[in-house]
Amino acid sequence: MAGSKLLVSVIGGHKCDASTASLAGSIGSAAAREGAVIVCGGLGGIMEAACRGAKKENGLTVGIIPGEKKEDANDFVDIVIPTGMGYSRNMLVAGAADIVVALPGEYGTLTEIAAALNAGKKVYGFGTWDIPGVRKLGSPEELADIIKQTTTGE
Amino acid sequence: MAGSKLLVSVIGGHKCDASTASLAGSIGSAAAREGAVIVCGGLGGIMEAACRGAKKENGLTVGIIPGEKKEDANDFVDIVIPTGMGYSRNMLVAGAADIVVALPGEYGTLTEIAAALNAGKKVYGFGTWDIPGVRKLGSPEELADIIKQTTTGE
Amino acid sequence: MAGSKLLVSVIGGHKCDASTASLAGSIGSAAAREGAVIVCGGLGGIMEAACRGAKKENGLTVGIIPGEKKEDANDFVDIVIPTGMGYSRNMLVAGAADIVVALPGEYGTLTEIAAALNAGKKVYGFGTWDIPGVRKLGSPEELADIIKQTTTGE
Amino acid sequence: MAGSKLLVSVIGGHKCDASTASLAGSIGSAAAREGAVIVCGGLGGIMEAACRGAKKENGLTVGIIPGEKKEDANDFVDIVIPTGMGYSRNMLVAGAADIVVALPGEYGTLTEIAAALNAGKKVYGFGTWDIPGVRKLGSPEELADIIKQTTTGE
Repeated sequence: MAGSKLLVSVIGGHKCDASTASLAGSIGSAAAREGAVIVCGGLGGIMEAACRGAKKENGLTVGIIPGEKKEDANDFVDIVIPTGMGYSRNMLVAGAADIVVALPGEYGTLTEIAAALNAGKKVYGFGTWDIPGVRKLGSPEELADIIKQTTTGE
Repeated sequence: MAGSKLLVSVIGGHKCDASTASLAGSIGSAAAREGAVIVCGGLGGIMEAACRGAKKENGLTVGIIPGEKKEDANDFVDIVIPTGMGYSRNMLVAGAADIVVALPGEYGTLTEIAAALNAGKKVYGFGTWDIPGVRKLGSPEELADIIKQTTTGE
Repeated sequence: MAGSKLLVSVIGGHKCDASTASLAGSIGSAAAREGAVIVCGGLGGIMEAACRGAKKENGLTVGIIPGEKKEDANDFVDIVIPTGMGYSRNMLVAGAADIVVALPGEYGTLTEIAAALNAGKKVYGFGTWDIPGVRKLGSPEELADIIKQTTTGE
Repeated sequence: MAGSKLLVSVIGGHKCDASTASLAGSIGSAAAREGAVIVCGGLGGIMEAACRGAKKENGLTVGIIPGEKKEDANDFVDIVIPTGMGYSRNMLVAGAADIVVALPGEYGTLTEIAAALNAGKKVYGFGTWDIPGVRKLGSPEELADIIKQTTTGE
């Protein structure tokens, strides 16, 4: 894995309001500018917004989707991984991450937060479930700094 | 599935203190007396205590374990299902349940609570994560009543 | 796992002709008479026939089904484990087994045979894929002998 | 998925002789030159050779590994997806593919061939298991043609 890329998993609801979508997009863009790959569940809402933001900056995006058909992925996913595993794919989205960014979401998002914390991942939250171990993320710019530190620090 | 059995998944830490183990045992016993099958992650702590409690009442126990070797299961599991899937097996423990009983545990337990709620399962908690949707369980006897209602009501 | 039960996974097509169904039923019955638990994919065809055969002898049956709804299981499954994992559940059916019996089936059955052999399981075949490592099973009675030897020999 | 990339899964043994490694490298290179992403199990042998070949041509490589630690991946994987799912990750390697290329391997490779055929994928083989449905691949150049046809034909 000598030269493997840094993966930022962006998790959150498959539906979201415009301001949350805008934030997710900025997070995707910020991560892409730092050279990170965006990983997500590959569907709509926050997942789509984050991918769209990453693609604006020519980033790379991975969608680990619940179904078996690549067509289910949103239009901004470069690499579609159909799992056919339903919600169990949440474990893979969490496990793939070097850094997890959690945005507002429901129980599916909580599953991913818990799985990521359980696996010892760094989880940053923005308006999401208040779980001990989740660090508050102030802004997309802060994420850029965290990525910079992670890349140089390891 | 006409005559399939009611499955009660008991989730919680793989280590626990004596009073929690005692409670888990009582829950296992209460469920077994009602004819329910105990499902768990198959290892130690709360999982072992619940299985032991069920076996005292000649109940049936299923352990869905993370590794590939049946030897990893505790001594009170009748049906060992080795998954080799690591923590992703938590999704199966949650998904198998008709009723989930959550006892104290860490992030792994939270993963299972979240997955169970996400799948629309009834989740009863006893000294565990305080997540909206988790109903408080007062006592093992209350679980017996819930099982009775579930069995006759469906 | 001190007292855990012997699990016999019966794999094969979800559709089958009457004579294959009859054979699957005899295999389920023979295994049940020896005290083994039948594990299968929980749906129709060979899976249903094997479960039905086991229940005739008051055996215990486990169905590890691809979907999330217990209703998908056939009527002769005692313990339904809904995985929501689609075809990946084949890995679990193979992995749960102490002994695998493979009957005629298509690529899904081949997946299970390969996974079982890969995991070092004993695989017995009857009119199924001709893969090195699969031993021919002559009759349901032969399976009974194999179960007896496995139970006493280990 | 409008603009998603074509994924070629290269499957085969985690150990291989020099000539098979050379072939796997040429396949990786040929696929990369056509703009396809190489997907594999992320470990050694054929997986490493295929990734190395792809990187020679500045291709992109994805490794879906059985363990939880990214360090397990070979040095030529760009995007490491640790699954913690053990051999069940074989299902994901098969399922992610638009095209599967199977090289010599043992039961793990057979599991992936069977899973890919079961999912309706096109599987091309080169000195591997002789299973109905696997088409013979004559050379890496032939794979390039297949990729070209797949990309323009859809």
